[in-house]
Amino acid sequence: MADHTTPPSDQLAATALNDDVSASTVKKHQFSDRVLIRSIVSRPDGGAGLAGQRVRVGGWVKTGREQGKGSFAFLEVNDGSCPANLQVIVDASVADLAQLVQTGTSVSVEGLLKNPPEGTKQKVELRVEKVIDMGPVDPAKYPIPKTKLTLEFLRDRIHFRPRTNTISAVARIRNALAFATHTFFQEHGFLYVHTPIVTTSDCEGAGEMFQVTTLINEAERVEKELIKNPPPSEADIEAANLVVKEKAETVNKLKSDKADKAVIKASVAELTKAKETVAKLVERSKLKPGIPQKDGKIDYGQDFFGRQAFLTVSGQLQVETYACAVSNVYTFGPTFRAENSHTSRHLAEFWMVEPEIAFADLKDDMNCAEAYVKFMCHWLLDKCLDDMEFMAKNYDKTCIDRLRMVASTPFERISYTEAVELLLVAVKEGKKFENAVEWGIDLASEHERYLTEVKFQKPVIVYNYPKGIKAFYMRVNDDLKTVAAMDVLVPKVGELIGGSQREERIDIIKDRILEMGLPLEPYEWYLDLRRFGTVKHCGFGLGFERMILFATGIDNIRDVIPFPRYPGRADL
Amino acid sequence: MADHTTPPSDQLAATALNDDVSASTVKKHQFSDRVLIRSIVSRPDGGAGLAGQRVRVGGWVKTGREQGKGSFAFLEVNDGSCPANLQVIVDASVADLAQLVQTGTSVSVEGLLKNPPEGTKQKVELRVEKVIDMGPVDPAKYPIPKTKLTLEFLRDRIHFRPRTNTISAVARIRNALAFATHTFFQEHGFLYVHTPIVTTSDCEGAGEMFQVTTLINEAERVEKELIKNPPPSEADIEAANLVVKEKAETVNKLKSDKADKAVIKASVAELTKAKETVAKLVERSKLKPGIPQKDGKIDYGQDFFGRQAFLTVSGQLQVETYACAVSNVYTFGPTFRAENSHTSRHLAEFWMVEPEIAFADLKDDMNCAEAYVKFMCHWLLDKCLDDMEFMAKNYDKTCIDRLRMVASTPFERISYTEAVELLLVAVKEGKKFENAVEWGIDLASEHERYLTEVKFQKPVIVYNYPKGIKAFYMRVNDDLKTVAAMDVLVPKVGELIGGSQREERIDIIKDRILEMGLPLEPYEWYLDLRRFGTVKHCGFGLGFERMILFATGIDNIRDVIPFPRYPGRADL
Repeated sequence: MADHTTPPSDQLAATALNDDVSASTVKKHQFSDRVLIRSIVSRPDGGAGLAGQRVRVGGWVKTGREQGKGSFAFLEVNDGSCPANLQVIVDASVADLAQLVQTGTSVSVEGLLKNPPEGTKQKVELRVEKVIDMGPVDPAKYPIPKTKLTLEFLRDRIHFRPRTNTISAVARIRNALAFATHTFFQEHGFLYVHTPIVTTSDCEGAGEMFQVTTLINEAERVEKELIKNPPPSEADIEAANLVVKEKAETVNKLKSDKADKAVIKASVAELTKAKETVAKLVERSKLKPGIPQKDGKIDYGQDFFGRQAFLTVSGQLQVETYACAVSNVYTFGPTFRAENSHTSRHLAEFWMVEPEIAFADLKDDMNCAEAYVKFMCHWLLDKCLDDMEFMAKNYDKTCIDRLRMVASTPFERISYTEAVELLLVAVKEGKKFENAVEWGIDLASEHERYLTEVKFQKPVIVYNYPKGIKAFYMRVNDDLKTVAAMDVLVPKVGELIGGSQREERIDIIKDRILEMGLPLEPYEWYLDLRRFGTVKHCGFGLGFERMILFATGIDNIRDVIPFPRYPGRADL
Repeated sequence: MADHTTPPSDQLAATALNDDVSASTVKKHQFSDRVLIRSIVSRPDGGAGLAGQRVRVGGWVKTGREQGKGSFAFLEVNDGSCPANLQVIVDASVADLAQLVQTGTSVSVEGLLKNPPEGTKQKVELRVEKVIDMGPVDPAKYPIPKTKLTLEFLRDRIHFRPRTNTISAVARIRNALAFATHTFFQEHGFLYVHTPIVTTSDCEGAGEMFQVTTLINEAERVEKELIKNPPPSEADIEAANLVVKEKAETVNKLKSDKADKAVIKASVAELTKAKETVAKLVERSKLKPGIPQKDGKIDYGQDFFGRQAFLTVSGQLQVETYACAVSNVYTFGPTFRAENSHTSRHLAEFWMVEPEIAFADLKDDMNCAEAYVKFMCHWLLDKCLDDMEFMAKNYDKTCIDRLRMVASTPFERISYTEAVELLLVAVKEGKKFENAVEWGIDLASEHERYLTEVKFQKPVIVYNYPKGIKAFYMRVNDDLKTVAAMDVLVPKVGELIGGSQREERIDIIKDRILEMGLPLEPYEWYLDLRRFGTVKHCGFGLGFERMILFATGIDNIRDVIPFPRYPGRADL
């Protein structure tokens, strides 16, 4: 049970949390007088050794009940720092108990930690001396009452769902995996690089990309402006031109009359002003409602970035510019797909981790991917076992065993050709797949899950895929039929990671681009990396939400990201 | 000099780097046979103790020269893991030296580490036995030759600029600050929350927001489709309806004739098919070129998210939903402004760090901000002193002293009213400001820099700003004139952080929204946080690029982000 009670992320938390469990004092939150509940209840002794300490805690009431004919109340208070609640006891003399016991009420309280009577579950409880603040709840109106709520129901109350046990546990697991990711790559000398979100590199086809624009806003602004203040007519401009003509004549006349210099100067100033008026009118007369057009097409020259811009679908190509300069890099950021998928596995906005390693080949890539996934599994078992136990109890009995297995088992590595052979044997032995198996197909999810869940019952890395089903930037193998790509398949989610060695040979990559019917011009910068000081390099992408699905056993990807975006929905 | 040679991020790097400096072996990069150059040259002994070790390194040639009538070459090789190069010696027998010595050539080499002759600068050099790989460069064409290049020049060669000393040093400093940020908040029990990039909460006015849409792509797709395959005419539909009528009559006739069941069934199937054809034609006849309109406005119901969507300008409001549930949270992600600013301080895409703390007030907020900034300064001095020395030498002589001062000096804290009084005194004493000073103005950059650079010569936190110049969500003070806002001002950049205690009282925040002429409806979810279990809470935002400007002394913000986006430019 020692593991169980280790607070999350405590490796580095010496200043914030109790690093010395035999200590008889609770370390204070550095910025205020409040202490986190996990620094009390997540100690190996359950907080027993802290009896006698005066502390201030804040949190929300999970459940509360009045006792002793309303003379005092028991509250279970949670502040999100760990799944466990702190038991809090309040006398009727210090607060309005009827308010306090309502689920969802916030409390900031101060008191003494005490050992409860023998035989109770808690190792420590808080006897409140002072209620500093309270945020009440009307139980008749509270949108997330104490009853069992489905994850679907919670998706419609997105601003309240982190107050539930499930979504707060997911938040802690997500946080732990994010910090594990940074820790892993930093430990191995990788630099974190922020690749752009807005991109003008339309590398995988614009069909699935979101467009980023100010043209529509601008058109609406112009439209409103023109209604308020109509554009000048031709007659207006003609009249203004006439004024210019008159003023010019006046100037000429004054000059030929050798008039006073000051008078001429004033007259020239009037002429200049008249000319400016014409220029402004002409400019305004060009204003047209609607999105600006040029040669029958939208004029992106007038868009914010001077050209068509999109939300990134991957930072890989851009991060390669850093790998080909500082050797070991990774990116961890949001990516976007405008796919009209309504499945439990797709989001329009999701987070990806994409390392890129120079002077490295496909084998190094597989080594890195395997080490990274194992590191994350160890991390969760070390830092989040209490949250994982919650998941095992409520969502997926096998999730902890799965983490342990993946953390400790060498991943199976088979070539695509071997994978297809194994699938064909399975078919021969009676296994039914919806998608026919033959060399050259892209493995479907059912094939991947068969390999990892049934055949090997552990993570499987499939490598050397047919050239025809993979991207142009993957390195062509000597057989000229396959490319140095690899996918990591894990039980529960199938493909978790996709990666490849990148084609570093300038002639071959040019041929590949042309072979795929793509133009060379937009890739010139990418080709430059191969023209000047080219290096063997490789990388991969891990879908961060997939990793959370894998870890928690939650079924729907919309429940493992704080603010899910999908067709028809982008709350908040 | 011990600090100087500490490799970046080595605190956690025991497995990847030499934690034991007396060790006489170099730890290998975990995933391949290569070692990072910093694990050789950044040891306190400069690598001297490693003599006799066989290692493989990869990197790019910074400078190279042939010696001994072309019998061997000296190369300075850098792999981006630290600012220092490794001196590499290659005999003519193992490689084409003329190629090898060109700046920008990539090399992967294996050999023995040796102690160079007495009196040389290096403590260790690599005698190459085998050149494993080489990526040549044509010096006549290399876009970033060895000559001194300006940062402006490099902005037009964005895919190569990380190969320069300056941009790679900035990349390492940026990386260090990012990991320092995560480490700091994780140490203090904050959960990292991914707030959404695409948002439908238009909280600060759409004018400065980028729109995210699939309507334009979809309109172009439809347009192309209609040209290729024109929509059905009314006559087409009429004809199809006629077919339905005929088929229906046939069915009726067969039924009344009590025909064979199989015959009737076939006839019904034909009728169904005819009806489907009509439905498809009607559907297609509705297709119109252009962006879909409804009631004279763009029909956002047909956009991807079913409503108008934007790129986020801040994650604050959304992250408050997590603070009001799990108490201590932070976000660290990209934010966007569609401002048409061409200054050296503005980007259209930039990264922000936004912590949010529950059960905390403005004082706690200031404490947290000060501790965070100090932590980052210490971190850079600990982990990146070699890069900081490069910056001090080449960009800003005072940058290291500035970090030391900020790390060790308590921040001055003055109210806005006091700040205005001090500025008025300065004006009286002859100080000229472009912007007039009086109570109620928003402090201009010149005022902020006067306070931090001249008056106090250290970081200054200004708090309690006039209500009228601040956002609706900031907590109204008891004087009813000011709000509990605070800005952290630092030398070199002025405002580095802006934060506030949030208004947690439902009636007051509603009044504030209405007072500002905003509608309540879009904020109902935000108001809910105050309706149910409300808590005192506060937070702030730090512009991550500003922190890098502050640390490095670099002048233009476009040089401290890997892929700068600004009006007219979004390369790659």
